Amino acid sequence: MKLIRYGTIGMEEPGVLIDGNRYSLSAHFKDFDRDFFSNGGLVKVKELLAEGENLPLLDSEERWGAPIARPGKVICIGLNYSDHAKEAGMPIPEEPIIFQKGSNTVVGPYDPILIPRGSEKTDWEVELGVVIGKKARYLDTVEESKNHIAGYCLANDVSERAFQLERGGQWTKGKSSDNFTPVGPFLLDGDSIKNPQLLDMKLTVNGQLMQSGNTNNMIFSVYYAIHYLSQFMTLEEGDLILTGTPPGVGMGQNPQVYLKEGDRVELEIENLGRQKQICQNA
Amino acid sequence: MKLIRYGTIGMEEPGVLIDGNRYSLSAHFKDFDRDFFSNGGLVKVKELLAEGENLPLLDSEERWGAPIARPGKVICIGLNYSDHAKEAGMPIPEEPIIFQKGSNTVVGPYDPILIPRGSEKTDWEVELGVVIGKKARYLDTVEESKNHIAGYCLANDVSERAFQLERGGQWTKGKSSDNFTPVGPFLLDGDSIKNPQLLDMKLTVNGQLMQSGNTNNMIFSVYYAIHYLSQFMTLEEGDLILTGTPPGVGMGQNPQVYLKEGDRVELEIENLGRQKQICQNA
Repeated sequence: MKLIRYGTIGMEEPGVLIDGNRYSLSAHFKDFDRDFFSNGGLVKVKELLAEGENLPLLDSEERWGAPIARPGKVICIGLNYSDHAKEAGMPIPEEPIIFQKGSNTVVGPYDPILIPRGSEKTDWEVELGVVIGKKARYLDTVEESKNHIAGYCLANDVSERAFQLERGGQWTKGKSSDNFTPVGPFLLDGDSIKNPQLLDMKLTVNGQLMQSGNTNNMIFSVYYAIHYLSQFMTLEEGDLILTGTPPGVGMGQNPQVYLKEGDRVELEIENLGRQKQICQNA
Repeated sequence: MKLIRYGTIGMEEPGVLIDGNRYSLSAHFKDFDRDFFSNGGLVKVKELLAEGENLPLLDSEERWGAPIARPGKVICIGLNYSDHAKEAGMPIPEEPIIFQKGSNTVVGPYDPILIPRGSEKTDWEVELGVVIGKKARYLDTVEESKNHIAGYCLANDVSERAFQLERGGQWTKGKSSDNFTPVGPFLLDGDSIKNPQLLDMKLTVNGQLMQSGNTNNMIFSVYYAIHYLSQFMTLEEGDLILTGTPPGVGMGQNPQVYLKEGDRVELEIENLGRQKQICQNA
């Protein structure tokens, strides 16, 4: 099952993607938000589809929004691929590195990347996104993390490296500019991914392959990360976790390469669709 | 004007505090959230009060919630008092250090501090909180920050120092446990504070004075911080900014002192009321 959202930014409505066609669910649900996931929304959508409910087909011109409502939290796992830690010149973490992005950075999969004013080092990061479906607090085991996942999605953890690393500590400063978290095109429900640690992923800039990896190279698995996070904070329904990026970011090139106005960024993860963003100055 | 919220946690309703009495505004407003502040809510409350509208008096037993709805973002300025930077053993920052706390950590002023499982270093931080009243993005001058402030409030930026500093980088890990951001008792509108850089503040633990300071010792002023933040991210209506803490945290004592079950934490800032929290194990 593939959940989508569509419409004007900030006014998105819920829908579903079936065989490449988008259908509206706005007569049945308000949004894919915390209430939706806490109140068995995923099961209700499945039931609707099983009943063969006749849903309105969307106009292909409708903008694609992020497939979930603005999350309560966007939590990121830093340096979670060993090769990426190496290219960033950082030691392999012994425990997951956690940072936050502003939830207002979440936009749709085809919205532009906005290069912040004063930026010279805007960079890309293809990442597997995980959406929480059931509150997670002090989970006892790594295995039970699976029961707390609503689904998976593709995300670009756009980053400004000078803001992140050269402007006085704490990465959130380089992670929270407008449009810095394109998500989608859809949320694939958790049951449809048997093994989240076996997904190919790649990212190109202007058609040139920059990142290429597989989630089997994560240092801390999705289930491990959720269990770990739940020891430090309560993960709520609709929260988004970005699980780190493989090698090939702009900062890791020799010489380094960063995004500029007009650049075209395309990314994909196996089973989770593709994104395309054109860079614009903010 | 002093805005308050009251009722069961997660179900709070809006109200106003007048001469020490709490009155309900729930017949007039849904909540003190982004919509409220973006749609001129503060002016509407002022008008209601000026018209002498007869508001229902609240039962004194009603729980005090945080005075604002769950913020879109909680952004903190780290090490923003020079003496506190010194006691933390960190250099004086050349630019504001920014970190985020989960918005779900915000609770009422008298709710318990929950000591996280596995914690040995739960600490206190009295802070001046600033609530954004008008979207701030790439502000041109420091002075115009004033126009983007809805009001001020008292906050405790509860922190777990081992999680923050000894568990692999990025402070959010030690800042985001449940109940880690008591806010309130009220939000004082911005017009009622002529100079936010001249407010006495203090915090006691079990009656013993631990923190004592004045906002005139901030390295980066409230207005400077908002202008600065707006260059890196969009601040939205209802976002909460915590502006740093003066010396006297538990980590700065010799020997260090941390909170344990049953401890009583009381804090206050001039004109912004008092908080009291009893520590409980999570």
